[in-house]
Amino acid sequence: MKKYCFGIDVGGTTVKMGFFETSGKLIDKWEINTNTDNYGENILADICDAMDRELAKQEVSLDDIEGVGIGLPGPITADGTVIQCVNLGWGTFNVEEKLSSMYHGIKVKAGNDANVAALGEAWQGGGKDFNSLVMITLGTGVGGGIIIDGKILTGATGGAGEVGHMHVAYDETDFCNCGRKGCLEQKASATGIVKEAKRYMERTDAPTKMRDFANITAKDVFDLAKDGDEGALAVVDEMSKYLGLAMAHIAVVVNPDAFIIGGGVSKAGQFLLDSVKVKYRESCFGPCGEAALRLATLGNDAGMYGAAAQIVL
Amino acid sequence: MKKYCFGIDVGGTTVKMGFFETSGKLIDKWEINTNTDNYGENILADICDAMDRELAKQEVSLDDIEGVGIGLPGPITADGTVIQCVNLGWGTFNVEEKLSSMYHGIKVKAGNDANVAALGEAWQGGGKDFNSLVMITLGTGVGGGIIIDGKILTGATGGAGEVGHMHVAYDETDFCNCGRKGCLEQKASATGIVKEAKRYMERTDAPTKMRDFANITAKDVFDLAKDGDEGALAVVDEMSKYLGLAMAHIAVVVNPDAFIIGGGVSKAGQFLLDSVKVKYRESCFGPCGEAALRLATLGNDAGMYGAAAQIVL
Repeated sequence: MKKYCFGIDVGGTTVKMGFFETSGKLIDKWEINTNTDNYGENILADICDAMDRELAKQEVSLDDIEGVGIGLPGPITADGTVIQCVNLGWGTFNVEEKLSSMYHGIKVKAGNDANVAALGEAWQGGGKDFNSLVMITLGTGVGGGIIIDGKILTGATGGAGEVGHMHVAYDETDFCNCGRKGCLEQKASATGIVKEAKRYMERTDAPTKMRDFANITAKDVFDLAKDGDEGALAVVDEMSKYLGLAMAHIAVVVNPDAFIIGGGVSKAGQFLLDSVKVKYRESCFGPCGEAALRLATLGNDAGMYGAAAQIVL
Repeated sequence: MKKYCFGIDVGGTTVKMGFFETSGKLIDKWEINTNTDNYGENILADICDAMDRELAKQEVSLDDIEGVGIGLPGPITADGTVIQCVNLGWGTFNVEEKLSSMYHGIKVKAGNDANVAALGEAWQGGGKDFNSLVMITLGTGVGGGIIIDGKILTGATGGAGEVGHMHVAYDETDFCNCGRKGCLEQKASATGIVKEAKRYMERTDAPTKMRDFANITAKDVFDLAKDGDEGALAVVDEMSKYLGLAMAHIAVVVNPDAFIIGGGVSKAGQFLLDSVKVKYRESCFGPCGEAALRLATLGNDAGMYGAAAQIVL
């Protein structure tokens, strides 16, 4: 394998670019704007220009580049075809072939951004010690990615790991963005935690410091729970119940070595893991219940690492 | 690849043996008794003797045998180690190495029987047209197996595909054999269907022909449902709800091309599939909800086929 590669995480606002040694060491990282004008027609050209500048800066020849890995915010089939990246303005085309033809015929590997972030954590992050893992990203929504033997599990239609839309809360009355009711995302995302906190305050008169916040956040809820606030603890308990249940469901399907928890909500740290672990073990079939629970460690760089890992692993 | 292979499905009472062309054609099949005396110490020797007799009968040389695939009723790790097959009396040892050393150093591949049956259906049965599939076997219990790109997904501890113990019925009051409450197996197995039929008859006075049976079976329930019996239809509806829900959970994890439904209960045929499909589609996240639903076609031979497929695929 050659000494270097690029890992590129394309978002709707910025493109995160990483220049890596194929050993896993990040040499340089920077961002460029995502130009979505004219259906995002310049995004790939901007990336090529940025790679050229980086090679000049690093005084590295293209001959020493193993390839370019790219993560994209939308479904990608196994052959590298993007199926409508709405955030980029893109329609359907083979992004691996296109970027390769634009950049000296270099090897290109593309993946969905959530899956690629999971691969990044598996390669150099919280999942480094494990052969197979399921990453669950708790942010505004809930995303997921599944890695088995160092490879992304894509699924028939690119939908493997879409665990945010697992139907776990049978009594949920509000709709999820997906059009159904009771998805994990409604219970375990930052948005969901805030909603449950508000519901708690509405249904009881019990004292809780959550009432002191005009616009409470998921972080506030976890901070109060860590201080022993009973209301906040009840909200965390509810969230943990559904997340643990979903993990138990996942475990009897793929039986991973580990779950890696990432996203903004995971900043609650070991306190969150401890709470979820109890619920997971309660719900899970014994022989599948021994998966390790770890925090993601790469933060916003996970996508960049995972994009590169597609080339290396 | 050589022309022939053996596919052997070891059960607690009989060993089903198949002599195959590696193209997938079954040439001969027969059974021998499973001798569990003395911790099953003679089982592998009996299999070797049976293979010798078959080669003589078919006038085929060992040089034309690609290998021996074997399915076993217990957890097997990826390297071929059996971890306590209680039904055979076996402890922990590497069955691939042992059988190979006993049979002229031949290539041996071992797998768990439920997983191997799924592989059989993927190779020559109901899943022949699909790249990835989840097989769900509805018998006395509920088993499962997951095939991705022609390979069994084993999981970290051999527990992948143990979907019978997915916790789907939150309000179940009885215990499952696994020690928890509310497993899919309690709702969708033949045993579970009979229990739900009895519960239905207890909780209502509504007329149903189910009351005419002293010892109603799952088959009776489905036969009555096909004839429009409202009570039986309610039981089938309940069973389909939980099975469809579990399939929706599975679909957001591995996003398979197809679900293959096997086991005794699947003899209810297309009527069962139609009922389950509605519930599956209702529960499932749209982008993962398009998996095909098919019946298993190999019956009790699936394990034998799948054992052989481990050698071929």
